[in-house]
Amino acid sequence: MRKICVVITARPSYSRVRSLLIAIRAHHDLELQIVVAASALLSRYGSTIATIEEEGFQVDRSVYTIMEGVNLLTSAKSTGIGLSELATAFNDLKPDVVVTVADRYETIATAIAASYQNIPLAHIQGGEVTGSIDEKVRHAVTKLADIHFVATKNAAERVIKMGERSETVFLTGCPSIDVVHNALADSSYELDIFKQYSGVGPIFDLTSGYIIAIQHPVTTQYVDARSHIEQTLKAIVEFGRPTLWFWPNVDAGADGTSAGIRSFREMHAPTNIHFFKSMSPEDFIRTLDKCDCIVGNSSVGIRECAYMGVPAVNIGIRQAGRDRGNNVVDSDYDSDSIVAAVSVQTSRGRLNSNDVYGDVGAGARIANLLATVELSIEKRLTY
Amino acid sequence: MRKICVVITARPSYSRVRSLLIAIRAHHDLELQIVVAASALLSRYGSTIATIEEEGFQVDRSVYTIMEGVNLLTSAKSTGIGLSELATAFNDLKPDVVVTVADRYETIATAIAASYQNIPLAHIQGGEVTGSIDEKVRHAVTKLADIHFVATKNAAERVIKMGERSETVFLTGCPSIDVVHNALADSSYELDIFKQYSGVGPIFDLTSGYIIAIQHPVTTQYVDARSHIEQTLKAIVEFGRPTLWFWPNVDAGADGTSAGIRSFREMHAPTNIHFFKSMSPEDFIRTLDKCDCIVGNSSVGIRECAYMGVPAVNIGIRQAGRDRGNNVVDSDYDSDSIVAAVSVQTSRGRLNSNDVYGDVGAGARIANLLATVELSIEKRLTY
Amino acid sequence: MRKICVVITARPSYSRVRSLLIAIRAHHDLELQIVVAASALLSRYGSTIATIEEEGFQVDRSVYTIMEGVNLLTSAKSTGIGLSELATAFNDLKPDVVVTVADRYETIATAIAASYQNIPLAHIQGGEVTGSIDEKVRHAVTKLADIHFVATKNAAERVIKMGERSETVFLTGCPSIDVVHNALADSSYELDIFKQYSGVGPIFDLTSGYIIAIQHPVTTQYVDARSHIEQTLKAIVEFGRPTLWFWPNVDAGADGTSAGIRSFREMHAPTNIHFFKSMSPEDFIRTLDKCDCIVGNSSVGIRECAYMGVPAVNIGIRQAGRDRGNNVVDSDYDSDSIVAAVSVQTSRGRLNSNDVYGDVGAGARIANLLATVELSIEKRLTY
Amino acid sequence: MRKICVVITARPSYSRVRSLLIAIRAHHDLELQIVVAASALLSRYGSTIATIEEEGFQVDRSVYTIMEGVNLLTSAKSTGIGLSELATAFNDLKPDVVVTVADRYETIATAIAASYQNIPLAHIQGGEVTGSIDEKVRHAVTKLADIHFVATKNAAERVIKMGERSETVFLTGCPSIDVVHNALADSSYELDIFKQYSGVGPIFDLTSGYIIAIQHPVTTQYVDARSHIEQTLKAIVEFGRPTLWFWPNVDAGADGTSAGIRSFREMHAPTNIHFFKSMSPEDFIRTLDKCDCIVGNSSVGIRECAYMGVPAVNIGIRQAGRDRGNNVVDSDYDSDSIVAAVSVQTSRGRLNSNDVYGDVGAGARIANLLATVELSIEKRLTY
Repeated sequence: MRKICVVITARPSYSRVRSLLIAIRAHHDLELQIVVAASALLSRYGSTIATIEEEGFQVDRSVYTIMEGVNLLTSAKSTGIGLSELATAFNDLKPDVVVTVADRYETIATAIAASYQNIPLAHIQGGEVTGSIDEKVRHAVTKLADIHFVATKNAAERVIKMGERSETVFLTGCPSIDVVHNALADSSYELDIFKQYSGVGPIFDLTSGYIIAIQHPVTTQYVDARSHIEQTLKAIVEFGRPTLWFWPNVDAGADGTSAGIRSFREMHAPTNIHFFKSMSPEDFIRTLDKCDCIVGNSSVGIRECAYMGVPAVNIGIRQAGRDRGNNVVDSDYDSDSIVAAVSVQTSRGRLNSNDVYGDVGAGARIANLLATVELSIEKRLTY
Repeated sequence: MRKICVVITARPSYSRVRSLLIAIRAHHDLELQIVVAASALLSRYGSTIATIEEEGFQVDRSVYTIMEGVNLLTSAKSTGIGLSELATAFNDLKPDVVVTVADRYETIATAIAASYQNIPLAHIQGGEVTGSIDEKVRHAVTKLADIHFVATKNAAERVIKMGERSETVFLTGCPSIDVVHNALADSSYELDIFKQYSGVGPIFDLTSGYIIAIQHPVTTQYVDARSHIEQTLKAIVEFGRPTLWFWPNVDAGADGTSAGIRSFREMHAPTNIHFFKSMSPEDFIRTLDKCDCIVGNSSVGIRECAYMGVPAVNIGIRQAGRDRGNNVVDSDYDSDSIVAAVSVQTSRGRLNSNDVYGDVGAGARIANLLATVELSIEKRLTY
Repeated sequence: MRKICVVITARPSYSRVRSLLIAIRAHHDLELQIVVAASALLSRYGSTIATIEEEGFQVDRSVYTIMEGVNLLTSAKSTGIGLSELATAFNDLKPDVVVTVADRYETIATAIAASYQNIPLAHIQGGEVTGSIDEKVRHAVTKLADIHFVATKNAAERVIKMGERSETVFLTGCPSIDVVHNALADSSYELDIFKQYSGVGPIFDLTSGYIIAIQHPVTTQYVDARSHIEQTLKAIVEFGRPTLWFWPNVDAGADGTSAGIRSFREMHAPTNIHFFKSMSPEDFIRTLDKCDCIVGNSSVGIRECAYMGVPAVNIGIRQAGRDRGNNVVDSDYDSDSIVAAVSVQTSRGRLNSNDVYGDVGAGARIANLLATVELSIEKRLTY
Repeated sequence: MRKICVVITARPSYSRVRSLLIAIRAHHDLELQIVVAASALLSRYGSTIATIEEEGFQVDRSVYTIMEGVNLLTSAKSTGIGLSELATAFNDLKPDVVVTVADRYETIATAIAASYQNIPLAHIQGGEVTGSIDEKVRHAVTKLADIHFVATKNAAERVIKMGERSETVFLTGCPSIDVVHNALADSSYELDIFKQYSGVGPIFDLTSGYIIAIQHPVTTQYVDARSHIEQTLKAIVEFGRPTLWFWPNVDAGADGTSAGIRSFREMHAPTNIHFFKSMSPEDFIRTLDKCDCIVGNSSVGIRECAYMGVPAVNIGIRQAGRDRGNNVVDSDYDSDSIVAAVSVQTSRGRLNSNDVYGDVGAGARIANLLATVELSIEKRLTY
C-alpha cells in the first residue's frame, strides 16, 4: 500500500490534480495524503482548501508558507519557509511518493523538501516551455524528480533530452482534461454563477455571449505588472462585451496586479466587468465552455481551451513557448492590440477539439502508474 | 562596475574559488562581494571564515544556515533557512551576478535565492556526473543558472544537451587547478603540518611516504554512513602506513561519519592515523603533493589529483560517473577491497599530469567572462 | 556616540515615536538607526515606510515578518520569523540600545532579539494595563527590558512593583502627546483629507461635525472579530452622522475584521462612511481634533484624546484597565449600546485637556535619557 | 479529559519533570502529550530523547530548533525557529495546557507559541532569582504564563508581587525532589557508571570519595566562557581528587565551554577527570548521592543538593540570588578560590536535609492541579 502525498498550493493546481486525487483514493494499492499549502489556504485567493474539503477530501496537513509584502525578497523567503515547513509535513506523513505539479515557488520547495528526505518525487507537467522564472523552476524540478508524468509529446521528448531515463517519463496527458470532461458530462446541471459565487460588479445576461479574463503578473516583469493589467482592463472596457474577470494567483507582483484592478475598478467603475475570486474547477469549466473567448495569460487558454475548442487571446510572454493548438492568437501588452485580437477571436465561434494536451483519463493513468512504477531516488544523466 | 557576489559555504568550495576571488578583486571592472555561509562559519568544520579573512579577503555577510541534529529532516530545513537568509544578504548587497559552486544544499539555496530576486546566476562545475543527491542538485542548479563555467569538455557538452544555450556555457577548466599550481609554485616553502595544524594523533616522519584519507557521508546511504567509515578506518589501520585523515564536511549523516570516527578512535586508538580538521587550501595541496595515495570519496582524488598525478582510491558511489584521468582505482565499502586497492595504488609512484579538468588560469578566465558576458535572467530550453 | 536603534512595526507606533526620532537625530551624542518591520512595510496597511521616508528619515533595514493567512498559528510563526529576522538586523547594525514600543507581536520579537544579543533594551509604554494578549506581552517585555520610559504615574508605579529598579524607570510621559502638539501648532495648515488621501466612500462636508471610527480585532476573541465589527458598522449607519473610518492593523483576526468591513460595504453600501487606509500622524491628529467623537477600541481614544479633550466611545475589552481621563464612555459589542454611547458623547462638545499621559516634550526627554542613562544588561528582581 | 502537553528541551528539564510525566500519565482525567525539542534531541548533548523513550514514554513530536554556530546571533535565531516550529506542534496536538519549565531560550519560545495560540500556559520554577539572561527570561515567562507551579515560598511571594493573582500561584515544591527520592528509594540498586555510561578518561575506584563537576556557560559573559572553564579544570586537576565531569548544555558560548574542555583534555590529559555526556536522572542522583562535593554552576548544587545534604561549590554568577540551603559555598572564576572552597566543602561530610525546595510529591501535586485548576487565558496585573 503506497502512500501518495499530493501537495496542492493554488487553485489551478488543485483543479489540475482533482481527477488524480479521486483516482488515487479509489485505488486499492494506494493511500492518499493531501497537503494544502501557500495560496490554497488563503481567503484572499479564494480559500481553495474550503473547496477541497467541501468536495469530500480529507486534508492531512495545512502548511502556511507565504510572507506578506509580495516582492522579490519575500518570494524567495516564502520559498525557503515553504521548504522548511513542507519538510516537517513530509517527515510526519512519511509518504512513499510526493507528487508536485507545474512550476511555482512551492513546486520547487516541495521538490527539495522531498528530495532531501530521500522520498521519490513525481512531477506533473514537466517538459513544457514558457517564459519567465517558471521556465527555470519547471526544468529544475524535472532534474530533482524521479518520475515524470508529462502532458504532451513534445514535453516527453524534452524531458528525455534533458537527460532523464525514458523509463521514468510517462506521456499521460494532462489531468486537467479530466476536469473538462467531467464538468461537461452532466448537461442537466444548472449554473447561476452570480448567485453561487456573488463576486463584485454588474450582473449580466450571459446567454448572448461573454468573455472570460484572467491575467497573472509575470515575475521577471515585476515592475510592469500594474501597467500590463491596466492595458487589459482598458481593452475589455473598450470592447464592451460582458466579461467575467477572475482574480490572479499570489505571485511576486500580485500586489501590482491586484492594486491595478482595485484602482481601475474604483476610478472607472467598469459596467461590463464582473469580478470573481474563485470558483469550483467544474463550474469554471462550465462557464468557460459557453464563453466566446478567453483573454489574458492563464495557461487555461492554451491547455484546456485547446481540448474544448475555445478561442483564446494570449497576452505577453507568460505562455511563450508552450505547446498549443490552433485556438490561440497572441497579443502584446497594449490595449489596441488586445482589442483587435479579441475581435478576431470572438468571431470564430467554437473550434474543433485538439488533443495536444491529451485525452480524458490522465488522472487514472497517473494513479495506476504511481501504484506500479519502480520507486528509486537514485538517478543520473543519461549522457 | 559589476558587483560579483561569491557565496562560499564549505572548505572545499573556498579552495576551488580562491583564484577566482583574487582575479575578481584585481579586475578593474569588477567589485568583489563575499558571502560566507553554512559549514564555512563553523569551528567544528575548521572555521573556513577565519582562513578567508586571514588570507586578506573582506567578508560582506556571514549567513548561518545549518540546523543542529544532522539528519534528513534538518538537511531540508537547513536548505530552507539558507534560502531565506541568503535572500536577505542578496537583497542588502544588490549584486549584478551571484556565483555559486558545485552541488551542495547551500548551492541550490543560493541558486533559488538569486533566481527569485532576478539576479543573474553563474554556476561553476555544472555538467559533471556523480552519484547521490548531489547529482540531482547539480543539474537543478544548471537549470536555474544563467551562465555556466564548466571544468571539462564532457561537462560542457552535457550542459548544452540539457538545453542550455551554448553561448552561455564556457569551458574554463576548474579553478581548483589554480590552487594546485600556486601552492606548488614556491618550492622553498617549508611546511610542518603537525606544528601548524596540530590535529589529533601520533606524529609521523612523513619523508618515507604516507597516505591521505577523506571520506564524506553519502546522503542517499544515510543509515550506512557509520559502517562505511568503519571499513575505511579498518583498512587504513590494517594497511599500516602513516595516514593523515581529514575530517568530513557537514552533510546529512555527518553525525554517523563523525561518530564513527570518534568511536573508532576511542576504541582502537589507531597508531598510524593523525586526524586534521582543516588546513589552508595551499598547505593541503602541498601535503597531497607528497603523498603516495589518496583514499576515500573526496572529489579531490578525481579532480586535483588528475592534474597532479597522484594515485587515488575512490570508495563507493559518491564520485561515480565523474570525468576522470587514469589515476583512479575504485573500491567497494569493504576493508579488504580497500586494502587491495591502496596496495596497488601506493606502488605506482607519481603519474603524469592529466588535463581533463583543465589547466592553470581558470580563475582569471572566469573573472574576465564575468566582466564582459551579456547578463540576462531570461532563458528557455533550446529544444 | 551611542547608536540608538528604533524598531517601527506599525502605523500607530510610528506616530508615537516620531518626536523621539527627531530628538535622537538632533542629539549630538546619539546616532539614529531605524528598522521598519511587519505591517509598517505593507501597502495594505498603508505603507508606513513610505511616510517615514517622505518625512525625511533614512530607513536602515526593512524586515519582513508577517506570514499570510492571519490566524493564531501564523501569528505565532510571524513572531518567530520576526525574532529571527530582527536578530540579523541588530547583528548588522550593532546598536548600543534597541528601542521598542508598546505590546505587539513584533515588540516581544524585538525584545528577545535584542536581549539574546546582549543589547540593552529600552521599552516605551510599559506598565499600562489593558485586556487580551497585549497585556501579557507588555509585561513580558518589561521583564526583558533594561530601561523603561513610561507614560503615566500609575504605569511607573506598576513597573517598579513588578520588580524593576526605580533608577531604570523614567516617567517621561507619552511621546504621542508631542505628535498632537506639533500637528496642531500650525493653525494655518489647510487639510482636505478626501483630496489628499482619497479612500473609499462618499465625500462629506465636514464642517458640521463628524465621527471617527477605528476598530481592531481582539486576539483572544478571534472568532468574534467579524460580528464585533458588524455591530459597530451597524451602529454607525444607524446613528447616521458622517463618519471617517480607519482601517485596522494586521493582527490575528484581521481577516475577520477586514472581511467584515468589505462584506458590509458591498452589501449595505453605507452612505455615511468614508474608509481610509492610512494618513500621516499629523493629518490624523488634525482630523481627530475637529471630530465630535471617536468610536472603536483604538488606544488613541484613551491616550491622545485625553490630552485633546475629544470624547471617546470605547468598545469592548481591548482597552480595559488602561489609565484614562474623563473623556471616555464604555460600550459593549452591541449596536444599540454603541448608538446610545455615541449619542451621549457627541453632545458633550470639546472637553478640558487632561495630562494623565503627560505633557509635550516626551520625545526630547527620552532622547536625553538615552544619551546619558547608564547602560547595562544585568538586572535582577528587586525583591 | 484534559490534554497536557509537556515540552522537554534539555536533559535537566527532563529530569525535573519526570515524576510529573508519570503522574500525568497515571491520572484518570489527564492525557499526556510530550514534545521533545532543542538539545534534548541532539546526540552531542546525550540524546535525552533516547532516554525518554527507553523509560517508556511516547514522544508525540520531535522539534528541531537549534542553529549551529553557537553565538549570540544564532541563539536569537534558534529561539525564533523554535517558536515557529513549536507553534506547528501545538497546532497539531491541540493541548488544553502547555507546560514549560524554568528559563531557557526554548522556555520563552514555548511560552510565546502557546500564548499566541490562546493555549493556557503552566510554568514550573517561576519566581526564582539568578543571574544572567535566564533571570530576564524566567520572569518574562511568568508574565506570559496563566498558572504557576513554584518551588519555594520566596518564589511564590515573588510571583505574586510581580502582579500575578495568588489563586494562580501554587507552592508545589520542585518535582526534581521526586527524582531524588525515587532514585535513592531502592538501596539494592547496583550502579557501575563506567560500565554503563563509558565516557572518556581514566576509571577510578569511587569508594574512597570523588567530586562531581558541571559548568555551563553564562550567556552574558559569552566571551569569557573559555577562560572560566579553564579555571575550573585547573582547580580540579590541582585538587587532585577523582572527579566525574558532566558535559554542559547547549547555550550561547557552549562552543567556548566545549572547546575549552576539549582543548584542555588534549593538552593536559588530566588523570583525575572522567568526562560523561549524559546519564539517566536516577543514576545521576545516585552518583551525586555518594560524592563529597559538587563543583560548578549547575542549579543541581543549589536545589537537589539542599534536599540531599551534599556540599556544593557554586562558581560565578549563574546561580546568584537563587534560594538556597546551607550546603553552598560560593567561589569566583579563579582556580585558587575554587580549590580553597572545594577543600572546605569536601571536609564537611554529609549535611542535614533542607526543604527549601520542598518535599517529595511535587509531580503528583502538579498533575492533580492540572486536572482541576480553572483554565483561562485572560489575566491582568493585580495592581
